[in-house]
Amino acid sequence: MKKFNHICLGLSLAFCSATSFATPTKNIILIIGDGMDDQQVTIARNYLAGPAGQLTLDKMPVRSSVAVLTVDEKDPSKPVYVADSANTASAMATGVVTSAGRISSRAKTNEALPTIMQLAAKAGIATGVVTTASITDATPAAFLTNSKYRGCESPAMMKAEATYYGLIKPRCDTDSKANGGPGSIAEQLVESDATVILGGGSKHFDQISDSDGTHLLKKAEGNAFSVVTTRQDLIDSEAPRLMGLFSPSTMPVMWRGQDGRKAEFLKDSTDSFSCEKEPKFDGMPKLKEMAQVALNKLATHPNGFILMVESASVDKQSHGRKPCGHIGEMKQLDETVALALEFAEKSPNTLVLVTADHGHAAQIIPASSMFVALGDDNYSPGRVALVETPSGEKMAINYATNGGSSSEEHTGVHVPLYGNDNAMGLIPSHINQPDLFSIMKNYLAF
Amino acid sequence: MKKFNHICLGLSLAFCSATSFATPTKNIILIIGDGMDDQQVTIARNYLAGPAGQLTLDKMPVRSSVAVLTVDEKDPSKPVYVADSANTASAMATGVVTSAGRISSRAKTNEALPTIMQLAAKAGIATGVVTTASITDATPAAFLTNSKYRGCESPAMMKAEATYYGLIKPRCDTDSKANGGPGSIAEQLVESDATVILGGGSKHFDQISDSDGTHLLKKAEGNAFSVVTTRQDLIDSEAPRLMGLFSPSTMPVMWRGQDGRKAEFLKDSTDSFSCEKEPKFDGMPKLKEMAQVALNKLATHPNGFILMVESASVDKQSHGRKPCGHIGEMKQLDETVALALEFAEKSPNTLVLVTADHGHAAQIIPASSMFVALGDDNYSPGRVALVETPSGEKMAINYATNGGSSSEEHTGVHVPLYGNDNAMGLIPSHINQPDLFSIMKNYLAF
Repeated sequence: MKKFNHICLGLSLAFCSATSFATPTKNIILIIGDGMDDQQVTIARNYLAGPAGQLTLDKMPVRSSVAVLTVDEKDPSKPVYVADSANTASAMATGVVTSAGRISSRAKTNEALPTIMQLAAKAGIATGVVTTASITDATPAAFLTNSKYRGCESPAMMKAEATYYGLIKPRCDTDSKANGGPGSIAEQLVESDATVILGGGSKHFDQISDSDGTHLLKKAEGNAFSVVTTRQDLIDSEAPRLMGLFSPSTMPVMWRGQDGRKAEFLKDSTDSFSCEKEPKFDGMPKLKEMAQVALNKLATHPNGFILMVESASVDKQSHGRKPCGHIGEMKQLDETVALALEFAEKSPNTLVLVTADHGHAAQIIPASSMFVALGDDNYSPGRVALVETPSGEKMAINYATNGGSSSEEHTGVHVPLYGNDNAMGLIPSHINQPDLFSIMKNYLAF
Repeated sequence: MKKFNHICLGLSLAFCSATSFATPTKNIILIIGDGMDDQQVTIARNYLAGPAGQLTLDKMPVRSSVAVLTVDEKDPSKPVYVADSANTASAMATGVVTSAGRISSRAKTNEALPTIMQLAAKAGIATGVVTTASITDATPAAFLTNSKYRGCESPAMMKAEATYYGLIKPRCDTDSKANGGPGSIAEQLVESDATVILGGGSKHFDQISDSDGTHLLKKAEGNAFSVVTTRQDLIDSEAPRLMGLFSPSTMPVMWRGQDGRKAEFLKDSTDSFSCEKEPKFDGMPKLKEMAQVALNKLATHPNGFILMVESASVDKQSHGRKPCGHIGEMKQLDETVALALEFAEKSPNTLVLVTADHGHAAQIIPASSMFVALGDDNYSPGRVALVETPSGEKMAINYATNGGSSSEEHTGVHVPLYGNDNAMGLIPSHINQPDLFSIMKNYLAF
């Protein structure tokens, strides 16, 4: 039992005096920056701390790299070199490499793979997820649910005709509860054992369950979740279990480019722009505020906990070529890292890990190219943002994985992994992504 | 004095029996992959070991990241977010951040900055550089010489009208020996204290010195360098000091794309290709062979040594959009890392560091894009190579920092740093590039 007197709050006080301090329980806080590769960390550092400065995560004592692994759906013996957030979160959550789009289910066979949070819950360990995406999105979903496809988010999205990024998605209807399947991700979440589930995605819960015609939020309350939808209700909540849904889908980001500017083709614009507050963020809880509430609730549990916190829009804003959006999201992540490290200072058996799921398109390129002086087309063929940093210089960010209007692509680069003192000796300097499952499971020793 | 009996060779035997084993001397092997960012390491791993496999450098116990710092030439208080190999090697060699193009000289003022090898030589420590570039190229030059511009490589290149990548370069003639300056990089190299200088660049030495009309190779021999130009002479050499010049400029790389293929615009070609041996490499010494000879010579010195080994063409082949070229060059680097680690096993006071100077253009993108199904221009606007890996899959590598025909750009991403056991406790998880100077100087304690 850990010393958690510093974090005992509200209804959970009963736990605080009940036990001795003899046998420390262990906790894990896993923070995932979706798409947070080394370029993203450098972009954020340049803007938030200056190139010679340090983010909070730069100060973490353990640093490793993580190979991102994906297999082919039809022939899982074959590697695929670029992943998506579904198969990468599944690898971390289950220790098994699967194919793109899958939520903790095995490539080709559809077998449901037990996740670390499902296993932890069975062992009496508390669990929670916090995200700036919909709570039904790939990363949180993979820790708490199993589905053959990330797009099976809600009863409505189980219909075969739904699309994803404009493309027809795989059929989910065979997985519906009506057809004897596990049901949509939202239906699985309201039935889950988690202590806290916080993020966006309310539209996926304002629906009727396939199985029994009950409204999903009613089912959540039936499963002892208190449901909140505003920042104030989040902060004021004294409920032991909490589902927070603060926006219809992905939560608005904290920052945007001046007047909504994003990267453009250099032939269209070479104007620079600064970052400003995103008005749509007004009233939203910050990631660190959601994480703080989650920690308050989880820390009351006698057998320790595992919490996953996702900063989802590093990826989403990079898809959309919006540098200020992903820089602001990295600021949210870094503030949450600081919170987690503070928590671990006071609860010394807390392993804090910070990593990414996969790489992304953004690259820092020269703001004034040496080659552009040669004339012709000697400049980036992609979209470029010239972001004005707080010190007054221009940082050029290139997005050039997709020339079309739809979205940038992920990249296949290995990603960083950071750990606090408790990670020392547990993490080699380079690991494969599924190794995170066993590192976490071994740490909690269940 | 270290135990170097296992590496005593030829003329150096005299040192082997001369001393006791009481006071261990210390050595440093610094291996630089020019442009070797995390994308390059991943590309190499995917090809050489498979995505779930490990390169030798992945097995090194210490892993850190290094912020690459550059300042503006006119106002050195201002940061610049993308570097070149001159200012980055200067940062490692001198501990001072300077402006792009400078060789261990201060931005704006031209002040020559003492390099770690110049300081080490004064302290009686042996030094050496090995590279697959010209030995006058930016990275090796910055460890042994000082110049206001990387292009001042030879007496002929001191002329004002010379160009670099087709662009008029800064005037070097004010730095000429005839004008009382330090002279070209080649002239400084033949006068240096180094024990070994191995690589390409013979054309820069088949010239007459500005100062006294002497042929540069004559001057090298006058400074006790034995000069070799073939692999066999390199291997057979028993001379205590050695200058090796194995090609007129950059040494040919080991691999190339099938029939010389490189990345192309996808609208022009979507054919994949495999890698094959580069015929021009025939007869060239491998990087590890040059490094082995350098270690043999340096290990005979009673006060330890510092050796810099550069795998230069990771950068040069990425500039040229040649994936097989940079993968083969990474293979050369990784073999050299294995050699250095073996040396350090036997000479336990050897610090082995592996790092890069700056990031580069190459990115792993999806081989079959999700978005391309949307039609229109939903594919990379840059040049893409579909490289067939040994396991039979296609790895798509994107080069999209410059649409023109000249060359790809560097990127501003922080770069990896790896260390052997002796680096434990010496290297925080994130450092700034000039910190490498003090880490190395403190290790050698001079």
